[in-house]
Amino acid sequence: MTGLPRMMIEPLVRAALREDLGQAGDITTEAVVPPEAFAEAALVARQPGVIAGLDLAKLSFELIDPAIETGIERPDGSGVEAGETIATVRGLARGILMAERTALNFLCHLSGIATATAAMVKAAAGHKARIVSTRKTLPGLRGLEKYAVRMGGGANHRFGLYDAVLIKDNHIAIAGSVAEALRRARENNGHMVKIEVEVESLAQLKEALAFGADAILLDNMDPNGLAEAVALVGGRALTEASGGVRLDNVAAIAATGVDLISVGRLTHSAPALDIGLDFRTG
Amino acid sequence: MTGLPRMMIEPLVRAALREDLGQAGDITTEAVVPPEAFAEAALVARQPGVIAGLDLAKLSFELIDPAIETGIERPDGSGVEAGETIATVRGLARGILMAERTALNFLCHLSGIATATAAMVKAAAGHKARIVSTRKTLPGLRGLEKYAVRMGGGANHRFGLYDAVLIKDNHIAIAGSVAEALRRARENNGHMVKIEVEVESLAQLKEALAFGADAILLDNMDPNGLAEAVALVGGRALTEASGGVRLDNVAAIAATGVDLISVGRLTHSAPALDIGLDFRTG
Amino acid sequence: MTGLPRMMIEPLVRAALREDLGQAGDITTEAVVPPEAFAEAALVARQPGVIAGLDLAKLSFELIDPAIETGIERPDGSGVEAGETIATVRGLARGILMAERTALNFLCHLSGIATATAAMVKAAAGHKARIVSTRKTLPGLRGLEKYAVRMGGGANHRFGLYDAVLIKDNHIAIAGSVAEALRRARENNGHMVKIEVEVESLAQLKEALAFGADAILLDNMDPNGLAEAVALVGGRALTEASGGVRLDNVAAIAATGVDLISVGRLTHSAPALDIGLDFRTG
Amino acid sequence: MTGLPRMMIEPLVRAALREDLGQAGDITTEAVVPPEAFAEAALVARQPGVIAGLDLAKLSFELIDPAIETGIERPDGSGVEAGETIATVRGLARGILMAERTALNFLCHLSGIATATAAMVKAAAGHKARIVSTRKTLPGLRGLEKYAVRMGGGANHRFGLYDAVLIKDNHIAIAGSVAEALRRARENNGHMVKIEVEVESLAQLKEALAFGADAILLDNMDPNGLAEAVALVGGRALTEASGGVRLDNVAAIAATGVDLISVGRLTHSAPALDIGLDFRTG
Amino acid sequence: MTGLPRMMIEPLVRAALREDLGQAGDITTEAVVPPEAFAEAALVARQPGVIAGLDLAKLSFELIDPAIETGIERPDGSGVEAGETIATVRGLARGILMAERTALNFLCHLSGIATATAAMVKAAAGHKARIVSTRKTLPGLRGLEKYAVRMGGGANHRFGLYDAVLIKDNHIAIAGSVAEALRRARENNGHMVKIEVEVESLAQLKEALAFGADAILLDNMDPNGLAEAVALVGGRALTEASGGVRLDNVAAIAATGVDLISVGRLTHSAPALDIGLDFRTG
Amino acid sequence: MTGLPRMMIEPLVRAALREDLGQAGDITTEAVVPPEAFAEAALVARQPGVIAGLDLAKLSFELIDPAIETGIERPDGSGVEAGETIATVRGLARGILMAERTALNFLCHLSGIATATAAMVKAAAGHKARIVSTRKTLPGLRGLEKYAVRMGGGANHRFGLYDAVLIKDNHIAIAGSVAEALRRARENNGHMVKIEVEVESLAQLKEALAFGADAILLDNMDPNGLAEAVALVGGRALTEASGGVRLDNVAAIAATGVDLISVGRLTHSAPALDIGLDFRTG
Repeated sequence: MTGLPRMMIEPLVRAALREDLGQAGDITTEAVVPPEAFAEAALVARQPGVIAGLDLAKLSFELIDPAIETGIERPDGSGVEAGETIATVRGLARGILMAERTALNFLCHLSGIATATAAMVKAAAGHKARIVSTRKTLPGLRGLEKYAVRMGGGANHRFGLYDAVLIKDNHIAIAGSVAEALRRARENNGHMVKIEVEVESLAQLKEALAFGADAILLDNMDPNGLAEAVALVGGRALTEASGGVRLDNVAAIAATGVDLISVGRLTHSAPALDIGLDFRTG
Repeated sequence: MTGLPRMMIEPLVRAALREDLGQAGDITTEAVVPPEAFAEAALVARQPGVIAGLDLAKLSFELIDPAIETGIERPDGSGVEAGETIATVRGLARGILMAERTALNFLCHLSGIATATAAMVKAAAGHKARIVSTRKTLPGLRGLEKYAVRMGGGANHRFGLYDAVLIKDNHIAIAGSVAEALRRARENNGHMVKIEVEVESLAQLKEALAFGADAILLDNMDPNGLAEAVALVGGRALTEASGGVRLDNVAAIAATGVDLISVGRLTHSAPALDIGLDFRTG
Repeated sequence: MTGLPRMMIEPLVRAALREDLGQAGDITTEAVVPPEAFAEAALVARQPGVIAGLDLAKLSFELIDPAIETGIERPDGSGVEAGETIATVRGLARGILMAERTALNFLCHLSGIATATAAMVKAAAGHKARIVSTRKTLPGLRGLEKYAVRMGGGANHRFGLYDAVLIKDNHIAIAGSVAEALRRARENNGHMVKIEVEVESLAQLKEALAFGADAILLDNMDPNGLAEAVALVGGRALTEASGGVRLDNVAAIAATGVDLISVGRLTHSAPALDIGLDFRTG
Repeated sequence: MTGLPRMMIEPLVRAALREDLGQAGDITTEAVVPPEAFAEAALVARQPGVIAGLDLAKLSFELIDPAIETGIERPDGSGVEAGETIATVRGLARGILMAERTALNFLCHLSGIATATAAMVKAAAGHKARIVSTRKTLPGLRGLEKYAVRMGGGANHRFGLYDAVLIKDNHIAIAGSVAEALRRARENNGHMVKIEVEVESLAQLKEALAFGADAILLDNMDPNGLAEAVALVGGRALTEASGGVRLDNVAAIAATGVDLISVGRLTHSAPALDIGLDFRTG
Repeated sequence: MTGLPRMMIEPLVRAALREDLGQAGDITTEAVVPPEAFAEAALVARQPGVIAGLDLAKLSFELIDPAIETGIERPDGSGVEAGETIATVRGLARGILMAERTALNFLCHLSGIATATAAMVKAAAGHKARIVSTRKTLPGLRGLEKYAVRMGGGANHRFGLYDAVLIKDNHIAIAGSVAEALRRARENNGHMVKIEVEVESLAQLKEALAFGADAILLDNMDPNGLAEAVALVGGRALTEASGGVRLDNVAAIAATGVDLISVGRLTHSAPALDIGLDFRTG
Repeated sequence: MTGLPRMMIEPLVRAALREDLGQAGDITTEAVVPPEAFAEAALVARQPGVIAGLDLAKLSFELIDPAIETGIERPDGSGVEAGETIATVRGLARGILMAERTALNFLCHLSGIATATAAMVKAAAGHKARIVSTRKTLPGLRGLEKYAVRMGGGANHRFGLYDAVLIKDNHIAIAGSVAEALRRARENNGHMVKIEVEVESLAQLKEALAFGADAILLDNMDPNGLAEAVALVGGRALTEASGGVRLDNVAAIAATGVDLISVGRLTHSAPALDIGLDFRTG
């Protein structure tokens, strides 16, 4: 999905606003700001990055006051420089102040992920490898975080345990062999399900190819090992590198010819992008 | 609260499990792992840090299979070294594999926050200043994140817009003056509500003190400015420093004598602590 | 908060409508009233009082039929006489009849609380004491009830266990002393949290003042005792009287100079204000 | 239903506890009371009345700490005197203190309704008339309140708009006549639905009987009018008196021979029964 | 209810859309269809039948994209022939494709029930018996399914266990006799509740009549037995036939003079009506 | 998934019980059956079929009364004959009667689907084709219905729009060609996503194969056309037949060599399997 339909994000924004407002609401604004005060403000980047999450910021304001107008100047996926205006907000000051933090919490987190992804994509440029995210996401925010990865130029791996098979070392240990695990996975799943298997040796890799894996996960291998594995696969399956991927080694990993590089830290450790709300009038 | 009552965390854990399981469930494990397979595993730190979130990890396993036993060896708030076992898990392998990622996603995120907080607390040690978190949290996770800050030795600021008054620059601009904003805030709020006001000059600071602020927020001031302000306040209100606090400058900020140092990045940008689940038997 | 944002009241109104409509809906109106029948009606006070809850009444009609127009003539906080029109309602008769009881149940309950509060405030007039509500509210309705207290001229105490510390006799008994309880409360709570302590003797009162309580709860004391305590406090903390406050003794209590008088019965025992919906056309 | 199955009350108790605990929980108890402190306490009536709601009180404690034991001494429906112990509570002090107010809020409200109902039933004793509650209930609490009416010896009218037909003056005005309204109601509803009609004159009453009403609502009639109507009905339908029923006139109303007396104030205006939690050990 | 207010159906439609969209959304349409592509389409019957559920289909489209216009040509309750257009849909193609299956799943299921009901009603025509549905419905869909029965010309029995008494064989066995069961049912229920009792012999039938049953359930009787029972009742109560009712025997059952014929298969086994969405432009 | 974890089914069972109990509960059983009455009962098949849904039936009883014991004699996936006992139920009679209909509604619906699937699987036996279900499911019940298909020996196609790409005729029309639609689908989706395309001609089929479709949907083709298409594909992609599949033609379709036969009527039109609850003691 390239957009975020309102139906899918509205429950999250409502929950976040309730978390901030509690039962008493914004006791500062209600006390200090008169109901008729009008304000214009701008969402401004304090550092360079890639934007994601404007629909959530916009909806934060709208759910508090449907009359607040949000004008988007740098849509999701755009790169911004420090000081650039991302969007403008106009309406009654009370509503803007009440929704401000919730809007920013969504926008800064998701833009942080998009920015980290874009940096990784750029570092790996020139090779065919796609940067993909994992299931190492923050509870309740997975759909949003995977969207932010796409806005940064990355792609998605599984959304959950339910949409593809990934056979890991522990599954293989229990099943007894790569071959047996693959056989069970294929027999017990529908035809639209792809199967990936994690291998730890060339022997396992050969077994995986022989028994029809759609993709091979090469975890924690160094570039030499990856290159050897990629050569052995020879295009018969997709190859995915994972483990310890950083900005300073992603180019070397990509150069091995792997199809995919998965990076958990894009979603579990990307720092927020610093964005603020500047009032132009009060 | 030093603990997290099950009633408060259960909805979050259920939502996280549903996010990962979807409607089809763990299609890898169901296909590959026989129902009777038993496993023992350990949650092991891959890097040093401070632990937070074990109740959530434990509940992740229990909600999938109440018969899974989790033995906690390093409770929340403990420091751990790389390689140390934090907890053990015993039970049917299917349940352990189905809940693994959800358990880790909670534990790694919250331990990351506790670890970042502990580092900041340590860096500011020797001064009276407390390290406090802000409302810059990830949507839906605020209560947990503020708990993690406490496990790391930090303290909490407001939980939301509802539990204390914080008059910021935009409020003051609309009200016309610090004095008027304070007057309105006091008149319109209950007696159990504390009032903090952000000041940008010594004149505003004097006005805040004269009109009875309980606390003074000193945003983006350098240590000299902070020290001057602290001296001027002279204990008549609490003083809080915020803005641009980092590990390398927090000691200098603390040395100014401020009572509180608030750090947004503890909750919005702390990287996950690397913790894994190692199977001992399959 | 002086208003009730739609986002905060909508879940309550939806739940109340579902409670009344069940799965089959309004089987009387659906059977008897043709879809095109139009009606005008008025919400009319049957007895004098103070109004609170019009946003909830209005939303009750709107959620059933967005085309129903509600015109508010006496907004929340207004005093009304018996026979006065509070608001008018115009639209298709079916929707008005379906939402009527839900709208009135909110409006009569909250106006009852506002009316009881206003009477208490009037009885205590001429003194500085504010009339405040407690946590003795009806389950699920606390935020609304505390809003109604404000509409009647009262103020709020804690909204819940989470937003301020109130150390009661049982806490003191467990902690061992007022001093120790205060010490623990301050050490384990953030700087924006106020601390009130209930005292049962002058010795405890002195201890509370010595150890920095922000407010003193004087429970079930007679006016003489209250006056003595107020004198002893001498403005160093807020003083709150509670227990057995009635319309016929609240003036005497206020005359003792206490800052606050808390009254549980405002929220748990205020009788509904009698308001009816009169159809002008059928 | 004479009992309240846990499945039906659990969502209400959970919501009430969350309302009181917020995200930060009981910040007084967590700070002041050590985790291992044990307590025994008793729910004690401070005034005479009839008990209702013990299952909700018990569940309030259990949801916070399943190990808390509640021993019921005076079950729902019992009369109690001032000073009598209704139930005992034993367990860790933290949990008891955290759940105390929620437990009491349910118990005092519902016991207040049961007590008011029992007084009305007693005042009308010696006649066949049953005291019944109406749809004038507090939003979200209808099922509980109607249960409390039964515990006080009353009976229930409709639970909502969905379970029986009640044709009121406005319905008749729109339909054109009592006869037409009755015809439409019968034609458009299932065979298990009873139909009651409000009449304002003897002519309407005769029409209602002629067209097969199951019950006749006699609103705001004086005892003479009621007696005349009851005689005219002659057992061909149930008769219900409503409007302005008080303790001091209910006997006269019952003496007219009506089958039912409906009283809105039982549910919308009954004052809470004063019940407290006394700690025996700390 | 002859209509389905949006407030009552919106939660069901939202849940159904979420079930189909998951976290990733419509990955086919998002990838393949450009955001600006516009489409017109028609909901077309592929076989003859009776329509029910258009409000749900319409809302499915609207919740995805409020700008999609749905023009209803054959409203709920209409008979249609194969090839007839039921409604038209115009708007952005993405939204139409995303909501298509959810809209059809509601519409085909409910129209299937309406169609099956209409066939049964037609087969029983010429007699007074009404065709009624039971509580044998699909979990979560009862309100909708009972609405569909009405659209097909049938009527409703109980909506749930809560809105009428139906004493079955097991209740009688436990109570000891029909008389005792009836006595308990009347004593413990409100005056607006009707009581039906299932009888298995003429002796039980006489007992039921003697003790005031409002309706008699005659389960699994052949037409001769039914006719005998109807004669014996002689209009003193309603009579209901149930069990094994099919299109080929319903006329014979109706001819016995019973008032009601209840048919579980209308709601638990009616096949979907085949309706498709034909795109006119892409 | 071969099982249904309690966490995933509990919300559905709770909702179904609430739908049946409303606010007043089971007013027949509460009135007629004494609290201490004990009962034993058996779930008995009234016609031959395949069982699915016992976990839901069991949980229906447990949520009403955890002390009710359900002993499963014929687990999900078993074939049963008319008269066979599927499970036994022992406990207090009230709970068994209150949960009976909800338990049966789940069990009869899902067993009906399993039975219909098993019949289709048997009719297609001797060929490699798997019988698969579609997204034509009843709103809210998709996960359960797809589980029932598996219990009947079938397999699953997509669970929703989110877990695989299926390019249909309308997508192709908008994209301009099969090739362009496939290119967009691959470019915009993750590597673990399979892509199926519906073709309407041999030319489209060749295009789909040339551009890398994982599966080919052959809609509404006769057996000759299917056989020709299968031959042309030659194992380069999976082939799926759909449209108008019935018990009397599924063998002919399977004989064409297609890999998959998808059947919407398994989930949207399978009649309930007739199962009853027979009380052995009252």
